[in-house]
Amino acid sequence: MRSRIHSNLLGIQNTPTISAGKKFQLDDLIEAQQFDREILADIFEVAREMEKVEKNSPGSQILKGYLMATLFYEPSTRTRLSFESAMKRLGGEVLTTENAREFSSAAKGETLEDTIRTVEGYSDIIVMRHFESGAAKRAAATTEVPVINAGDGPGQHPTQALLDVYTIDREIGKLDGIKVALVGDLANGRTVRSLAYLLAKYQDVKIYLVSPDVVKMKDDIKDYLTSKGVEWEESADLMEVASKCDVLYQTRIQRERFGERIDLYEEARGKYIVDHDVLNAMQNHAVITVDVDADPRAAYFRQAKNGLYIRMALLKLLLVGW
Amino acid sequence: MRSRIHSNLLGIQNTPTISAGKKFQLDDLIEAQQFDREILADIFEVAREMEKVEKNSPGSQILKGYLMATLFYEPSTRTRLSFESAMKRLGGEVLTTENAREFSSAAKGETLEDTIRTVEGYSDIIVMRHFESGAAKRAAATTEVPVINAGDGPGQHPTQALLDVYTIDREIGKLDGIKVALVGDLANGRTVRSLAYLLAKYQDVKIYLVSPDVVKMKDDIKDYLTSKGVEWEESADLMEVASKCDVLYQTRIQRERFGERIDLYEEARGKYIVDHDVLNAMQNHAVITVDVDADPRAAYFRQAKNGLYIRMALLKLLLVGW
Amino acid sequence: MRSRIHSNLLGIQNTPTISAGKKFQLDDLIEAQQFDREILADIFEVAREMEKVEKNSPGSQILKGYLMATLFYEPSTRTRLSFESAMKRLGGEVLTTENAREFSSAAKGETLEDTIRTVEGYSDIIVMRHFESGAAKRAAATTEVPVINAGDGPGQHPTQALLDVYTIDREIGKLDGIKVALVGDLANGRTVRSLAYLLAKYQDVKIYLVSPDVVKMKDDIKDYLTSKGVEWEESADLMEVASKCDVLYQTRIQRERFGERIDLYEEARGKYIVDHDVLNAMQNHAVITVDVDADPRAAYFRQAKNGLYIRMALLKLLLVGW
Repeated sequence: MRSRIHSNLLGIQNTPTISAGKKFQLDDLIEAQQFDREILADIFEVAREMEKVEKNSPGSQILKGYLMATLFYEPSTRTRLSFESAMKRLGGEVLTTENAREFSSAAKGETLEDTIRTVEGYSDIIVMRHFESGAAKRAAATTEVPVINAGDGPGQHPTQALLDVYTIDREIGKLDGIKVALVGDLANGRTVRSLAYLLAKYQDVKIYLVSPDVVKMKDDIKDYLTSKGVEWEESADLMEVASKCDVLYQTRIQRERFGERIDLYEEARGKYIVDHDVLNAMQNHAVITVDVDADPRAAYFRQAKNGLYIRMALLKLLLVGW
Repeated sequence: MRSRIHSNLLGIQNTPTISAGKKFQLDDLIEAQQFDREILADIFEVAREMEKVEKNSPGSQILKGYLMATLFYEPSTRTRLSFESAMKRLGGEVLTTENAREFSSAAKGETLEDTIRTVEGYSDIIVMRHFESGAAKRAAATTEVPVINAGDGPGQHPTQALLDVYTIDREIGKLDGIKVALVGDLANGRTVRSLAYLLAKYQDVKIYLVSPDVVKMKDDIKDYLTSKGVEWEESADLMEVASKCDVLYQTRIQRERFGERIDLYEEARGKYIVDHDVLNAMQNHAVITVDVDADPRAAYFRQAKNGLYIRMALLKLLLVGW
Repeated sequence: MRSRIHSNLLGIQNTPTISAGKKFQLDDLIEAQQFDREILADIFEVAREMEKVEKNSPGSQILKGYLMATLFYEPSTRTRLSFESAMKRLGGEVLTTENAREFSSAAKGETLEDTIRTVEGYSDIIVMRHFESGAAKRAAATTEVPVINAGDGPGQHPTQALLDVYTIDREIGKLDGIKVALVGDLANGRTVRSLAYLLAKYQDVKIYLVSPDVVKMKDDIKDYLTSKGVEWEESADLMEVASKCDVLYQTRIQRERFGERIDLYEEARGKYIVDHDVLNAMQNHAVITVDVDADPRAAYFRQAKNGLYIRMALLKLLLVGW
């Protein structure tokens, strides 16, 4: 990271920074396992401040002079625009590439580490999307510039998990003591697994797992929940669960997971969809959230906007601290 | 649209805005039918001011803190760069994607409305290019953020039509009483149709239609001109029309419109091209303009630059009003 | 180039510029042949200042209000990001396209000159990458806006050559009297040819040419060196050369240059590689540099960073002078 010694050479501005300079606990944001309750509370607190910034024009200049590189090895326009908007809302600048595979093309034959060493020379923070699990961790090990994982293949997508928990907190007003139904494909989505992981950090959480047999939650997560004292139960009765939960988190069931068994897919799809009957069964205060990666209806539930606040908070915390 | 209540939280700047805050008559810019004489005069007046801004360094900061998203479902580098230059010349920032089709890809299966609801969360104004007629109207109906149509398939491209009329006004000095020859393919170009539509708003306009039979102006526009009291006549004699008009607007004749009849294409191409003889026949004060979309020679005629001023004016008017 | 008459119309800022306004000797940066010792010294002096700017937050605002267009006819993410970072570190703004081939596509049929005339209307400086030798010169001949050649096919890549010489100057502390070994493929790399060309401008330079026969330095460069009084010798003994040189500049030997003769390739590859033995043979003060275009290990040698400083210096000099 660049030092913050100011200079007047060549018109360098002496902008007073607001940040008291207390360093954020994390140097990089790679995986959901990095978070504890305190860190989550800190991020959410700054995200709340960011809601105010974003609603005001002409926005904050707190990251003026900072340069973020979005290094995308596969396109993900939604995620990229969210990060770039977050940076620009705070007065920062962006270097963009959705074409990062070119670095590692046969012709150039460059390793990820080589690329990171080049890009760190051009920017103050790197937001990376990669097609290989573990790529973000390797990048962070290579550079002292902060790295944010914007999804690495079947691996992690930690800002996504953060915005899900933040959305629940904002909608329900608490995280301790909530009852959450995870509905749909619980085997394949990285988001639903990260969400279960993060919820386990709170007290008296109850988790309902509602899914077709072929795509039910794997044992590692169930064992983890048990070890953390989180109460969970599997159920095939969506209506009954709907009447008891505070939050219903739905992930889309994808046909390709069922292989030849189209009949099972059709049955599952009908049974685990949130329709008007399910909505009517839910308590008045309860909310539905969705896996943003897999289902565009997230936009309806203010989650996209919450993702913006979370990303603004992370950029501020990683670049200038508290 | 974001409210304009200022705050000092987190280093938010209290930049004094110049705009008196009088709201622009339009909320979005979707189609040429939205304009009347007064609106056109207003846009042209601001475009004239923008010529001064653009010629001065370091430019205006009137849109500082505003974020424009260029949401392009098909690439159009010329149009995109013009809008992005306009925004940046006014101190605003840009989120870019030429890859917006990814949103509606099979994998994500997102509707245009869903995408717009996400992107409105990231930006203050959306400039959209789409391959389907009517897409811009659907986008504008979905969001309260201003939408500018940067071309929707065979539909509208209203900023293009505006810059054509603005160019005529700047070059000839008036719009009432002008004689305009529309030459070339008058059947397929969306621009020539929009231009005829806009010219009908002025007094004592005379329009000459000069085209091969296969691509002559369709009856709907001719009926419209008649209903608005615009005098028009069809002619096959380019030389004679050239000697009478103030403006000769040329659209390229494309081979593919003639199907198998290459012979007709070759004949038409020779007959409706503006060569030295045609130039010599024209009056001294007369000018040639061209369909920028179809013919790159627009650059010779200051139209590209006029397009920049028009777009600067629209961004200012839609974002901060007068 | 835009005039620098300031105005207060529409909130235009009267930012005091630091530049004394002394014009830079060059209007464009097209090829290594444009440089003489004085120009090189000037660029390197400003590049040294840029190292200080870059290390300070929030950076310089000396190019605030200026707009750079990166007009890339083929992708080169590394070069593009370096230029864009340079511009943004100085407070300037960027219009990006890696899709410039679209301008000259069959459908649009636009000449390079037409495209340049359009893009000059949108920006204050054009950084161009093209697949055809001579394209940058044609662009510069078309527009009064400064053009920087960011590589034109097999032709020139002058900022690359500059950063190589700058790196040697920074690492060794002098250019007169240095001994440089050029190792590897000396026939095909445009960079090694430009480097030889630039080194010839200094006094008492000794150049060792170490390469397999199939890819040895061509006669035109050897004749040029001789005509400029530069001592050079060809050698097949990398170990001996390593023990005598101050700088070992390595270019990768590419298999495709050897055609069917894989055996020759394997032999050459083994013989001209810098391994531990070669490193041990080198003098303590000596350094290794590499052809950044062909070998990503440049990042290890601070060259990528030097490229950033060189590009910052050029943007400042071409846009606002001294």
